[in-house]
Amino acid sequence: MAAKQQKTLDDLFEETLKDIFYAENKILKALPKMAKAAQSDDLKAAFEKHLEETEEHVSRLEQVFEMIEVAPRGKKCEAIEGIIEEGADIMKEFKGAPALDAGLVSAAQAVEHYEIARYGTLKRWAEMMGLDEAVQLLEETLEEEKNTDAALTELADAQANEQAQAAE
Amino acid sequence: MAAKQQKTLDDLFEETLKDIFYAENKILKALPKMAKAAQSDDLKAAFEKHLEETEEHVSRLEQVFEMIEVAPRGKKCEAIEGIIEEGADIMKEFKGAPALDAGLVSAAQAVEHYEIARYGTLKRWAEMMGLDEAVQLLEETLEEEKNTDAALTELADAQANEQAQAAE
Repeated sequence: MAAKQQKTLDDLFEETLKDIFYAENKILKALPKMAKAAQSDDLKAAFEKHLEETEEHVSRLEQVFEMIEVAPRGKKCEAIEGIIEEGADIMKEFKGAPALDAGLVSAAQAVEHYEIARYGTLKRWAEMMGLDEAVQLLEETLEEEKNTDAALTELADAQANEQAQAAE
Repeated sequence: MAAKQQKTLDDLFEETLKDIFYAENKILKALPKMAKAAQSDDLKAAFEKHLEETEEHVSRLEQVFEMIEVAPRGKKCEAIEGIIEEGADIMKEFKGAPALDAGLVSAAQAVEHYEIARYGTLKRWAEMMGLDEAVQLLEETLEEEKNTDAALTELADAQANEQAQAAE
């Protein structure tokens, strides 16, 4: 009886790549809804800007798939499903309420942190696997996710939270 | 007809508190399984240390519930359900494989980042609501989650990834 094939870092990398590919495509569909729901023009603009970036992230992932000679295909990511579902609940429950934007920022930051975790891991693994060009692409996206998270914190501090507070 | 009551930051704070309370209790159950599954002693020790911290996080959340005079009760958090489910899949698929520890670290970092997002938001909101003691407690937990994430990155760099790579 042949020994069961041992799963390696290559397998982990491929599975995680499919996970974040699924997640990014899900986020592409969620962002226009969040931009539409946002009350403040600044928050709308932030979501729209991130939508453009997300299109680029998908394209970068497709390039990484090509580098490892795997067809670009998503694998259902239960984590992003849950995170986006919670965001949708906020949009429903806080529709028209002063705290809506604060809730939208919170939901978006949960998405960003999921991506930061995944891209951080993928970049580390790509380094170990000697995939230098992939490292570069993953690093670019990682930095954009971190910048988006920081921009959302600034927006929240400046605006959404005060707006929510003012109504109390 | 009375105007529909407007949801405010207080409501958002309470809902998010219930969300992370549910999540922390879920993590309390997942960590012993992850510690048991981990191949390296260092990773086992890291999960066990974080289990002790998580017990303290739950206790701090109970104190925050008391401060806002709400009974400590969780609200199903779909995000953590999904994140933990993905971790369980890794444990199953990579059982006995050299890449298992790298996968466990990746799963744990997704958990940490979810918590970092939620505690960051809660701390910000507590500041705006003037809940100074709650800010202190949330800040302590937030720092511990960030430290755990950083410690996992160090462990992964030092060990799990090399182990996974060595087998290729």
